[in-house]
Formats: sequence, structure tokens, C-alpha cells
Amino acid sequence: MSTQHKQTAHQIRLLSRKNHVTNTSGLAPGHLQANLLILPSKHSQDFQNLCHRNPVSCPLLGLTKIGNPHTISPSTCIQSEDFDLRTDCPKYRVYKNGTYLETVTDLLPLWTDDYVGFLIGCSFSFEDALSAAGLKPRHQVSGTMVAMYKTRIPVLASGIFKGATCVVSMRPYREQDVERVREVTRPYLATHGEPVDWGWEALQRLGIRDIERPDFGEKQLFEEGEVPVFWACGVTPQMAVMAAGDKIDGLVFAHEPGHMLLTDFTVKDLEMLGRPLYN
Amino acid sequence: MSTQHKQTAHQIRLLSRKNHVTNTSGLAPGHLQANLLILPSKHSQDFQNLCHRNPVSCPLLGLTKIGNPHTISPSTCIQSEDFDLRTDCPKYRVYKNGTYLETVTDLLPLWTDDYVGFLIGCSFSFEDALSAAGLKPRHQVSGTMVAMYKTRIPVLASGIFKGATCVVSMRPYREQDVERVREVTRPYLATHGEPVDWGWEALQRLGIRDIERPDFGEKQLFEEGEVPVFWACGVTPQMAVMAAGDKIDGLVFAHEPGHMLLTDFTVKDLEMLGRPLYN
Repeated sequence: MSTQHKQTAHQIRLLSRKNHVTNTSGLAPGHLQANLLILPSKHSQDFQNLCHRNPVSCPLLGLTKIGNPHTISPSTCIQSEDFDLRTDCPKYRVYKNGTYLETVTDLLPLWTDDYVGFLIGCSFSFEDALSAAGLKPRHQVSGTMVAMYKTRIPVLASGIFKGATCVVSMRPYREQDVERVREVTRPYLATHGEPVDWGWEALQRLGIRDIERPDFGEKQLFEEGEVPVFWACGVTPQMAVMAAGDKIDGLVFAHEPGHMLLTDFTVKDLEMLGRPLYN
Repeated sequence: MSTQHKQTAHQIRLLSRKNHVTNTSGLAPGHLQANLLILPSKHSQDFQNLCHRNPVSCPLLGLTKIGNPHTISPSTCIQSEDFDLRTDCPKYRVYKNGTYLETVTDLLPLWTDDYVGFLIGCSFSFEDALSAAGLKPRHQVSGTMVAMYKTRIPVLASGIFKGATCVVSMRPYREQDVERVREVTRPYLATHGEPVDWGWEALQRLGIRDIERPDFGEKQLFEEGEVPVFWACGVTPQMAVMAAGDKIDGLVFAHEPGHMLLTDFTVKDLEMLGRPLYN
């Protein structure tokens, strides 16, 4: 284990604030990592319903009250009093009228008291469980960014958010390991859970033209006998923002793909996350 | 309003038990109606996760304990002490190894103490809200069964349930009424919510070849200027059962499409259904 692996989620957030962190894959093992989407309050109900309707790609871990960048509900999600949603993610994307504008290191100059922030589970959260099972993700071995692809899986419409499709992350595994990979990631319902598809035939089903050319992140090398395994990805909400286009008033902010917000949720919180009211 | 419209959900269940009811569209207005899936307990966790991962097509309203056909959790879902899951739905489909076997009027001779029953929200639940808004569904006007179609929208895999696609129900509306139709049905998150697609172009996106030939129910007539509007449908779990095939040990039971179980949930319960733990 590197010293990095001993750092807490809080420490990673402080390092992110100082812009000393980029790719968060493998950081603060055992902690759930979050995608971000921050938008004007008038669109927050549509977006929250979008999460409810698409919990595999957009599993909601927590959200802020309007205009408050310091407190996430539920409070167990992020517990440090110095938390600031505008600085504690390594990098942020800025969208205007559904179009990507730029990537910035903090949102302090852009924030207004009308924004609502949503934290959405990230598949980095189950990567140490995969590693512990002898199934370490290739991008962690190679020190690259996970490969992500746009697909034709529909994101089911909610209000202004309609016509978007899912993004998936991809990790290569031997075909005979796929069922074990599914089992290991299945309990992580709140961070995308088990894969949505796998195998070389999945490329056609998902509408992925070229495995060598991911839409986000970096391409991954396949060893003999390996097949691509695809999980839903929390970059999907950014596709929904792009599909909504100029129906969105004002700027929207999101994390830069691969540059996640570390939460204080751990695998022990999974039982109560992504579950219904009764069980 | 016919006298039928004044009957309670409990009265409809008793009439269903006596096999005096077929199509339940329009019965006991204001009450949520449920699709059924009843399967051996060893598959219940996979199926429950399937519902969590696909809440638009498979919104879970309630479930039984193993082997108990009399009590649904949460208890507010069905409150009559004489309730029997094996008789109180008008008609049941029987599947063996994922293949449709027959339709029966009750499950008493087939039931064992190893079955778990799942109640899944039905779009009939929002039809009186549509009617109240002056948007009465065509099949209610014509006294036919709602038209249902298989699509290519993937049902996201859970354990043995993989490779299935969604079923949708269809109601014709004027193009200029679609946004209003979306608004009226949007709050019904627990009973499929707003449409998943609409317009004549949706046929190609959904993979529906012929609007005149629904896979379940009866074809609906279009008036000039009307377009098809599609909602996710609770027949979808039966597609998941068929896709699982012989991975399912034993018989599986479901409702006959259009022949729903009436619950005691009303529109007032929608706020707490289909929502996360925090809001």
C-alpha cells in the first residue's frame, strides 16, 4: 500500500482544494467517490427526478440546499465542517446553454446563491473491492485514466432533460472472470452496481464504434482472452445537460471526468444507499 | 360516472377473486394499480435489485415475506385482512423456465411456501389524473385494452436477469398536448411517471415495427394530428423472466397484461413512493 492509500477522504478533499490531485482512482480506499452536477435551483426538481428514474447511471448520494456549498444532505455524506463544494473537487467543467465552455480548478468566482449541488455515485468506489478480489482494474495498474464511452442506452426523460444517452466506464477482464466481477460490484447499488453489459458483442449493442477511442479518459490495453466490461458512469448527467441545451438558464457545473469528489461514505453505508424505504 | 367508479380497491379485489373482473383500466379511480411478479425465494434478491436498477419500468410498490400470500410490506399497500395474492388479481400468467405456459384465474393449486410476490406500479394509476385534465386515454373511451409493445430499451442487468428489454404502454395524444401529458404523469414516479418517448419518430428509436400490431393488449385508433406517447410498462418483469430462461428454478407467476391487482395506495401515497430516503 502506498502512503496515498492511508489518506482519508477529508485529506484528499484538502489536497483537491489546493489542486494537488488529478485522477482520484485508487485514492482513500473504502470511501465512496462522487460525480458532481451543480445547477440553477429552478431545474433541480427535474434533475432529482432524472436521478430517481436513472439510478444506475445517476445514483444520488446526496445534495445541497439552495445556495449552500458547505453542507450535504444526508450529513453523513460529507462530515468536515470546512467542506466547500466549490473547491474540494480536483477540477470542474463549466457548461453554458448545454455546451462545454471550459475546465476550472474552483467555482468561487462563478457561484451564486441559487445553485443546488448533486453528488452522484462513482464506480471508483468499488475498485478496491475488485482489487481485493484479485481483479485490479487495468487503469490502476497502468496509471492511466479509466476509459469512458458514450452509448445509445437511453437516459429516461425527466422534464427538460430528455433525449440523452448513458456514458459507460470500461475495464478489461478475462471472459471467465466476468461473473465474479459482476458479483463483486453487485452490492454497490449506489455507485453504479454491476456492469450494464460486457463482451465484444456489447460494442454493437451499446453503439460504441471504436474501443481504442474512448470519449473521455484514456484507452486501455487488452490482454489475450480479455473482453470489455462496461459500467454505467456518472458522466451521464453531463450528457443530460447537453441534451437540455438552452432550456437551462445560466451556467451548469460538473466534475471533470475522472476527477471525483471524495465523500465520507464508506462501503458500510451501501446498505442504506440505493435501497427503497422498505426491504 | 358509472357505479363501477364508486367501488373501492377492496371491492375490486373481491370481484377479481370471484373472476368477475377482466381489464382493470378505470376501476377504483385514485387507487394505484399493481403489476405482479411471483418467484422462488432464491431469485428474490436479484429481482429486487432489478427493480431498484430499473424503477421506471419496474417501480416496486411492495412485496411479501417468503411464502406468505396474505401480507404486503409496507402494510399500507394492501390493508384488508382477507387479502390473498393467489386469488385477488383477475388473471395470472404462469411461466416455466422462462416460457409462457398458461393463463389461470388463481394460483391456489400452484403456490408453495417458497414464493415471494412483488407488486410493481402500473400506469393505469395515473389514467384518472389524465381524464381529470381532459386527456382521457383512448382505450378508456373505446372500451379496449391499452396497447403494449416490446422495445429495444435495455432492462439493466441484475444477477440472473440479463438481456431483457422494456415493454411500453401507448396512448395516442395530439402533439400539442404532449407537454401537458408529461406534466400530469410526472409526479407518478412510483407508477412509471412521465413518458419515456413520444412522436412517430419514437417508433424507430424504440424498435417498434408496426403500431397496428401491439405485442399485448389491443391496437388503438389515431385521430388526425395525434402521435403515440409511450410509457414504461410493468409487463417488463415478464420479459426479464423470459430472458433469464432456465436459470429460474420452478414456476414463476405474473399478472395477465391489463388485469391488475388493485392496491389501497392512493395518489396521496405517491410522495413517499419512488423517492429516496432524503429529499
